[in-house]
Amino acid sequence: MQFQNPQKQQPNISKTAWISETATIIGDVTIGENVYVAHNAVIRADEPGSSIVIGDNCNVQDNVIIHGLSNSKVSIDNNTSLAHGCIVHGPCIIGKGCFVGFGAVVFDCTVGKDTLILHNATVRKVEIPDSKVVPDGAIITEQKNAVQLSDLSPEDSDFKKSVIKANLHLVEGYRNLSKDA
Amino acid sequence: MQFQNPQKQQPNISKTAWISETATIIGDVTIGENVYVAHNAVIRADEPGSSIVIGDNCNVQDNVIIHGLSNSKVSIDNNTSLAHGCIVHGPCIIGKGCFVGFGAVVFDCTVGKDTLILHNATVRKVEIPDSKVVPDGAIITEQKNAVQLSDLSPEDSDFKKSVIKANLHLVEGYRNLSKDA
Amino acid sequence: MQFQNPQKQQPNISKTAWISETATIIGDVTIGENVYVAHNAVIRADEPGSSIVIGDNCNVQDNVIIHGLSNSKVSIDNNTSLAHGCIVHGPCIIGKGCFVGFGAVVFDCTVGKDTLILHNATVRKVEIPDSKVVPDGAIITEQKNAVQLSDLSPEDSDFKKSVIKANLHLVEGYRNLSKDA
Repeated sequence: MQFQNPQKQQPNISKTAWISETATIIGDVTIGENVYVAHNAVIRADEPGSSIVIGDNCNVQDNVIIHGLSNSKVSIDNNTSLAHGCIVHGPCIIGKGCFVGFGAVVFDCTVGKDTLILHNATVRKVEIPDSKVVPDGAIITEQKNAVQLSDLSPEDSDFKKSVIKANLHLVEGYRNLSKDA
Repeated sequence: MQFQNPQKQQPNISKTAWISETATIIGDVTIGENVYVAHNAVIRADEPGSSIVIGDNCNVQDNVIIHGLSNSKVSIDNNTSLAHGCIVHGPCIIGKGCFVGFGAVVFDCTVGKDTLILHNATVRKVEIPDSKVVPDGAIITEQKNAVQLSDLSPEDSDFKKSVIKANLHLVEGYRNLSKDA
Repeated sequence: MQFQNPQKQQPNISKTAWISETATIIGDVTIGENVYVAHNAVIRADEPGSSIVIGDNCNVQDNVIIHGLSNSKVSIDNNTSLAHGCIVHGPCIIGKGCFVGFGAVVFDCTVGKDTLILHNATVRKVEIPDSKVVPDGAIITEQKNAVQLSDLSPEDSDFKKSVIKANLHLVEGYRNLSKDA
């Protein structure tokens, strides 16, 4: 479902994205090509001056919430996965090719490209460099911890790519189902 | 959507509250004035003898779950924010002017007034005093840890108030949109 | 709502299960007798070769997500509770009589029978023995930690059983309401 916000702004969604009919998208939201937005996701830009931009080939999985404070921006760059139940709250800039894990919270952050944030982690008020790994359940709320994170391994990189590939495959699969219907 | 529970009790919701059409509210639930209930929130009082009361000017954000054990009460006092994806489970009493953070779990607790529970924290079987801060990701399941929590700072207090104000503004904004429609 | 997946597989759900109209069930999913699937739960088997089987008398509470990688299986054995907002991701085998707590994440695991995984815990890439307790917020991602978990207490066992009983009671209660309607 798509709704206007109180400022009467409407989402702008690529025709090539696949959006679940149970997802809720509100206000100043821009969604790029081949994005998969799964069930019960909420992408809500309704505070005054808030906006959300999701780049091409991203996936926003089931029950994910994206929202932002007033006068803040959420930007998710291309080929990034927001996995089941994670929460991304603006102000927040996430680079290309990242993965935010199940139930993770990312708020008031800048995250570099190719970074893997694992499940139930909490990342707030820090800048995470490129190609790092935030471990499962880690609490990263001080910059000194953010800079000490481990580097991405080849296996981590393969995992991130496999998630993007699987979700692009789902977009194609669901699009084809719709054509048949 | 509003439903009766198996005991055929129905929610009782102030006409001044703004309830998303995708929220689910069931059974012996009372919701006060100017409350904002966001998308996919579930407020469910359906165990025998369970009840949920949400005071005036509260907000229950996206994907929040409120539920209770049988013969238990959930009470959320005025001006409290339940932020995105948190879970509040009865028995649970939360005082005035609190904030429960993204993905936090609060179960079988009494929380004093003006307390800030941060993101992905777990609080269970304890009594939290007034005006404390539960850090991001903290696990507070023993009373000795509950009494050692830090005091709320002026910045924390301002943050809490700003969330209430922003959500009251949304209630007004969405109410005005409905009038225009 | 029930949907086919891109492979045109459909869910197979016992007539004695009670499924919220706001739950989303997709693809190669089998649900046993007297299962309660609560509001906004997503049970999605849509990656190629993935399947989900939920045994008799289980409950899948509000906003729970079950999904699996391609060519993986999720199997939840009889009398297991998946509590509010938890995420179970395949490959994942969970034994009889388990409880997965609020907001917990279980991914790429085998969990024995009668195990209690508490709230906001993260369990990944391990094998959990029978009758253990994973504490609130614990991060169990190495096998050496999995084998050191405490044993289930009689109180824990009673709690698990009470959750199953309460949810079977809800299935019966909601079924009776539907008959009256």
